[in-house]
Amino acid sequence: MSGSTFGNILRITTFGESRGPAIGAVLDGIESGFQIDTVAIQQLLDRRKSSDDVFSTPRKESDRFEIVSGVFEGKTTGSPICIMIRNMDAEKSSENDELRYFARDGHADLPYHIRYANCDYRGGGRSSGRETAARTAAGAIALQILKSKGVDISCKVSSVGGVRGSEDSKDDMQTWTSLVQMYRSRGETAGGQVTCTASGIPAGIGEPVFDKLDAVISHAVMSIPAVKGIEFGSGFGCEFKCGSENDKAPSSGGVLGGLSDGTSLVFNAAIKPVPTTDCEMSGTDVRTMMRKTVKLHQRHDWCICFRICPVIEAMTAISILDLWYQRYGR
Amino acid sequence: MSGSTFGNILRITTFGESRGPAIGAVLDGIESGFQIDTVAIQQLLDRRKSSDDVFSTPRKESDRFEIVSGVFEGKTTGSPICIMIRNMDAEKSSENDELRYFARDGHADLPYHIRYANCDYRGGGRSSGRETAARTAAGAIALQILKSKGVDISCKVSSVGGVRGSEDSKDDMQTWTSLVQMYRSRGETAGGQVTCTASGIPAGIGEPVFDKLDAVISHAVMSIPAVKGIEFGSGFGCEFKCGSENDKAPSSGGVLGGLSDGTSLVFNAAIKPVPTTDCEMSGTDVRTMMRKTVKLHQRHDWCICFRICPVIEAMTAISILDLWYQRYGR
Amino acid sequence: MSGSTFGNILRITTFGESRGPAIGAVLDGIESGFQIDTVAIQQLLDRRKSSDDVFSTPRKESDRFEIVSGVFEGKTTGSPICIMIRNMDAEKSSENDELRYFARDGHADLPYHIRYANCDYRGGGRSSGRETAARTAAGAIALQILKSKGVDISCKVSSVGGVRGSEDSKDDMQTWTSLVQMYRSRGETAGGQVTCTASGIPAGIGEPVFDKLDAVISHAVMSIPAVKGIEFGSGFGCEFKCGSENDKAPSSGGVLGGLSDGTSLVFNAAIKPVPTTDCEMSGTDVRTMMRKTVKLHQRHDWCICFRICPVIEAMTAISILDLWYQRYGR
Amino acid sequence: MSGSTFGNILRITTFGESRGPAIGAVLDGIESGFQIDTVAIQQLLDRRKSSDDVFSTPRKESDRFEIVSGVFEGKTTGSPICIMIRNMDAEKSSENDELRYFARDGHADLPYHIRYANCDYRGGGRSSGRETAARTAAGAIALQILKSKGVDISCKVSSVGGVRGSEDSKDDMQTWTSLVQMYRSRGETAGGQVTCTASGIPAGIGEPVFDKLDAVISHAVMSIPAVKGIEFGSGFGCEFKCGSENDKAPSSGGVLGGLSDGTSLVFNAAIKPVPTTDCEMSGTDVRTMMRKTVKLHQRHDWCICFRICPVIEAMTAISILDLWYQRYGR
Repeated sequence: MSGSTFGNILRITTFGESRGPAIGAVLDGIESGFQIDTVAIQQLLDRRKSSDDVFSTPRKESDRFEIVSGVFEGKTTGSPICIMIRNMDAEKSSENDELRYFARDGHADLPYHIRYANCDYRGGGRSSGRETAARTAAGAIALQILKSKGVDISCKVSSVGGVRGSEDSKDDMQTWTSLVQMYRSRGETAGGQVTCTASGIPAGIGEPVFDKLDAVISHAVMSIPAVKGIEFGSGFGCEFKCGSENDKAPSSGGVLGGLSDGTSLVFNAAIKPVPTTDCEMSGTDVRTMMRKTVKLHQRHDWCICFRICPVIEAMTAISILDLWYQRYGR
Repeated sequence: MSGSTFGNILRITTFGESRGPAIGAVLDGIESGFQIDTVAIQQLLDRRKSSDDVFSTPRKESDRFEIVSGVFEGKTTGSPICIMIRNMDAEKSSENDELRYFARDGHADLPYHIRYANCDYRGGGRSSGRETAARTAAGAIALQILKSKGVDISCKVSSVGGVRGSEDSKDDMQTWTSLVQMYRSRGETAGGQVTCTASGIPAGIGEPVFDKLDAVISHAVMSIPAVKGIEFGSGFGCEFKCGSENDKAPSSGGVLGGLSDGTSLVFNAAIKPVPTTDCEMSGTDVRTMMRKTVKLHQRHDWCICFRICPVIEAMTAISILDLWYQRYGR
Repeated sequence: MSGSTFGNILRITTFGESRGPAIGAVLDGIESGFQIDTVAIQQLLDRRKSSDDVFSTPRKESDRFEIVSGVFEGKTTGSPICIMIRNMDAEKSSENDELRYFARDGHADLPYHIRYANCDYRGGGRSSGRETAARTAAGAIALQILKSKGVDISCKVSSVGGVRGSEDSKDDMQTWTSLVQMYRSRGETAGGQVTCTASGIPAGIGEPVFDKLDAVISHAVMSIPAVKGIEFGSGFGCEFKCGSENDKAPSSGGVLGGLSDGTSLVFNAAIKPVPTTDCEMSGTDVRTMMRKTVKLHQRHDWCICFRICPVIEAMTAISILDLWYQRYGR
Repeated sequence: MSGSTFGNILRITTFGESRGPAIGAVLDGIESGFQIDTVAIQQLLDRRKSSDDVFSTPRKESDRFEIVSGVFEGKTTGSPICIMIRNMDAEKSSENDELRYFARDGHADLPYHIRYANCDYRGGGRSSGRETAARTAAGAIALQILKSKGVDISCKVSSVGGVRGSEDSKDDMQTWTSLVQMYRSRGETAGGQVTCTASGIPAGIGEPVFDKLDAVISHAVMSIPAVKGIEFGSGFGCEFKCGSENDKAPSSGGVLGGLSDGTSLVFNAAIKPVPTTDCEMSGTDVRTMMRKTVKLHQRHDWCICFRICPVIEAMTAISILDLWYQRYGR
C-alpha cells in the first residue's frame, strides 16, 4: 500500500488498523497560529461514533484523541499535526477466529488476502471503517480553519433504504428508524444517500485540468469505505434536463470547469448497505479457495449513513483547504 | 493551474488550448519495448472526433497526431511519450468577439475569468472539451498495453436524454438520433449516461486507503469536462438492496475495499447536456458584472455521450495501468 | 509546512517536535509479510543516540519506540507502519526562557520566526536534530528489507575538524576524540565529513530524468539538519581528473546517467559544526529585531558526525527502496 | 521512467531524445497575466548552446523554440506552457553505428541498456545533455517571474580543471581557454566547478522537513547530467571552521533549517569532465557483455562548465518559484 497519503500541499496520512493498538492521522501543511478547538474535534468524532440508536454497532469506542504534535499552547505551529486514538474495544481474537480463513463476499477480505497474503486476520485491518475516525479527527481541524475563512460544510442523510427524506427531519428520523428496525429483524442492513453542502467558497478554487475541485473531492469521498457513487449538482438527473435548463443554478453543484463558481457546492454520495449481516454469509475458504456459507456472530452496524456524514465533511474540508492553499498560499 | 499532471508512477501531463496552435500530452512511466499500434491510436481519436451525425459539432478537426518522443522504430523506449495534435479549425477570433466579455452561465467562463483574469478569451481555452483529445491519444497507448496484459476496457452509451438503452443497440441508436433531432429543432442539447467495463483485471490492484482503485478512477473520470457523477456497481441503486443481497456480484462493480476483486470493473458516469445551446443564453458581462441575455452563434455539440466514451476509456486505462505498475513494477 | 512527507510509492512522513510529547514516523508502501527485526531498529536508534563520549550532548533520550501499526505477529502487513518515540528528557521551559525571544545566528530560529510567527519557542521544534530519530526508526525497516534483497548500506565518519581518517579506525577515534576535547575546552563545536557506501544494488535503479538515483538521495540527505553538501564518487575532486581518467570506476560513485551502474554507490556528505556553542552567541531579539550577544547555557552536541551516520543510512535506504519498488513492484 | 516531472505546485515535465525529432518541456502552475520576454528565453538558450569557442562540441543546434501553449497575446494564461525545440543537427545514424552495441564506460549506456533493453541506440537518448535545453527554456520563464519579484539568480564558472578563478574574470577566461586547449591536444576533456547565487529571496521560503530549500535545489541540480556534487555556503569547507565561526554569514549559504534566511543563497556544484573523449575508450559489447576498447569519432564538448550555468540557473529558479508559490499562492 502506498496510498495512505492524500493531498498536495495540505496532506493527510493515516495509519492504524481496526484491531491494532491505535489509529491516527498526520495532517501536514496547516497554517500556523490557528487556535484549535478541541471540543469541536471531539464533537465531530462523537457524531461518527456508534451510539445506542438502532443504526449502530454495539462495538463501543470512546474515541478519545491525543494531539501528539503540531499544536502548542492551543495553537497550530505550522508543523504536522499528529492525532492519535487508542483502540479500546478491539474484539478478543477468539471472536474472530471463525474469520481467520473465511473471506466474506462483499468485503475486502479476498482481495486483501490475495494482495497481502492475509497478514492480518483481525477483521478488516486497514479497510475497516474504523480508519475513518482518524480522517475525521484531522478533517475536524480543516473544517475549523475553513469556517474561519467563511466556508461552512454540512453533510446530512437524504435517503435510507430507498426512502427519501422530507421537509421535516423529525418525521424522517422516525421513518428511517422504523425501516432499519424492520431490516434488523431480518438480520439485514440498509444503505442510503447523503448530501453534502459547502457554502462560502469564493469562485475560482480548483486546479485545471486534473485537479478540478469536483475531481479532487470525488477522489477523497470515494476513498471512504462504503461510498459507491458521487454526483454534483443535478448529477445523474442532468440527463432529464435540456442544455439551457441545466445551465441554471444550482445544476452545476457549485463547480464549473472544475473551479468553484461562487454558489454553494452540493454533492450526493451513495452509501452501500453494510456488508456484514446476521444472515447466512457466503464466502471463500482461503486455504482451499472453496466456496462456503456460514452464519457469523460479528458485531456490526445496521446503517452507516448517519455515522458517515462527519467523515464526508472531513474529507471535503481537507480537499477544499488543500486547493485553497494552492490558490492563496499560507 | 498546477493540475495538468495526473498519476503517480505513470503520469499524464496535458497542454494546449482549444484555440491555440496545438494540444498534446506527455505520458511518462511507460514500460520500454512495447510495440505501439498507431492505427489504434488514430481509431480512438476518430471515435472522439466530431462526425456528420446528428450529435456532433460542425467544427471539424482531423486530429492527426505526431509522436514527438519516446517511441523509436515503433517501440516504446521507456522515455516520456509526447503526442501532439495541431489545431486546424480554430475559429477566427471575430467569431468569438461576442464572447470576449460575456461569461456564459453553465460554462467555466466566469470562474476562469475570476481566477485567471480572462487572459484567454478564445473560447474555452483549457476547460474546453478539446483538451480531451490529448488525453485520448495518450490513453490509447495505456489501453494497448493493458490489452497485452489481458485487460479490456470498453465504454458505451447507456442512456440519452433519460431514455435508457435496450438489448438491441441498433434500435437504441435510432431512438436516440430521433430524440436529439427533436432537441436540436428547439436549439437544445441533451445529456445522458455511459457505462464503462474493464475485464481481466487481476484481484488486488489498488492502493489503500486513499488511492483505492475506484477513488483513483473517480478522480480521473470526474476530471473530464461534462461528467457530473460516477457510480460503481449497484452505485446509487444500492440503497434499494439489503446487505446480503448487495454482497452478491456484480453489486461491487469489481472493487472491494478499494482493490480489484477479480470480477469485471463496471461503472456509470453521468454526462451533462452541452451548456452551449442555440437558445438565448444568460450570462455576465465581465466588464460591468451586469447580467445579460444574448443569442450566440457558436458551433457546438448536441450530445457528447458518444464522443466522451473513448475519453473515459483512456482515463480509466491510465488509472489502472498506474496502479498496475505500482503493484508489479515495470 | 507541507514538506513532512518524502517519497513516491514508498513514503515517509514524520511528525513531532523536539520538546513536544513525542516524535514519530509513518512509513507507507512497505511490502507485506516481511519479518521485522525490532532489535535492529533499536540498534540503529542507539547509534543515533547521545552517549557518554566526548562528542554528545548531555540530553539523554532512551529512544524507546512503539510500533503503533502496520506490523502484526512480527510481520509487516502492507499497511503504513507508524513508529512513535516519546520524548523523555525535554528541558523544563525555564531552561529555554532565555531563548524565547532570542533568535540565534546560525540556527533556524529567525527564518522560523518569520515564517511561523514563533509559535513554538521550545527550542528547535521541527528543525531540531531530534526529528531525525523518527526517520532513523523508519529507515531501519527499509535497511532490513534492502538487506534481505542483498543491499548493504553503511555510513562512516571520514573526517572531523579537517582531520581525515586513516587506515586504522582505532587511531582515528583517538585523534578525533582529542581534537573535539580541545574544541570543547574552548566551548567550541566541530564539523566533519561522512562517507556512505551501498553495495549490492543491481544496475538500472533510478528514474530518469529528475528522479535519478543520485538526485533523490541528494534530496533525502540534504534534508537532514547540519548536512551542507553531498558529492558522489570523485565529486568535487572530479575536476582534477581528465575525462578518460574519470570514466574509470569508482569515479562514478555507482551511478551513471542517474541509474545505478552495478558498482557500489559511494557518496560523501559535509556536516557542519553544531551551531550551538558555549561561546558568546550573536543573534536577534525578535521583539525589537535588534541584534544582541548573549552567553547561553544550553545542552548541545560537540560533534554530530557520529550520530548522523545512522540517519544518513536510514534516508539512503528509504530513497533506494522507493526507486526499487518503482522498478520491480512490491 | 517516471521521473520526467519535477515540482509540487509548479511542475516541469520534459520530453524528447537527443536524436529524436524534438525536445520540449511543459511548465505547469505558472501565475496568469505575466508578460513573457521571449528574447530573454532565447538568450538563456543561447548561453547553453555550443559556440565556436574551445570548450564546445561542433554539433550545432539553433535551439529555436516554439511556445505551443499557455501564452496568449504575450502573456501567460495560467495554463501549462509547452515549449518545443526541434532537433536539427541529429547525427546520421551511420555516425553512431559504431555505438549501437558498445556501452561506453563513464556513460549511461550500460545501465540504460540493462533497464530499457537498449531500445534507443541513437546516442544518449534521454540521458544526453541535450535534454537540458528543454529545462533551460522552461526555467527562463521562472527566472523572469522571480526577477519581477526581486529575485536575481546568476551562475558562474568558478574553477576549471582544478584552476580556480581569480578576481579578474578576463584573465580567468584566458587561463581556462589555454588549459582546455591543452586538454584537447591530448584528446581529453576537463571538469570544474560553478557557483550559483540567488539574491532577493525573502526569509522563510522552503518547506520543512523534507522539502527544505536546499534539499529541493539539491534534487533539481543533481538531476542535471554531469553534476556530481553540491554544497551550500561553507559546504565541504565547514569542517575547517569551529561552530561559532561557522554561525556567521555567509557560511549558511542563505539557508538555515531549510528556510531561506534573508541573505543571498549561494551554492557550488561539481561538474565532471565530459566522459566522451578522443582517447581510446573502454566499454562493454552489450551483445556479448565482453569488455573492449575502441577509438570513437564522436562530436563532443571539451568542458561543459560554461554551458551548464544557464541550466543550473533554470533549475534553481523552478525550485525557488515552486516553494514561493507554496508559501504565497498564485
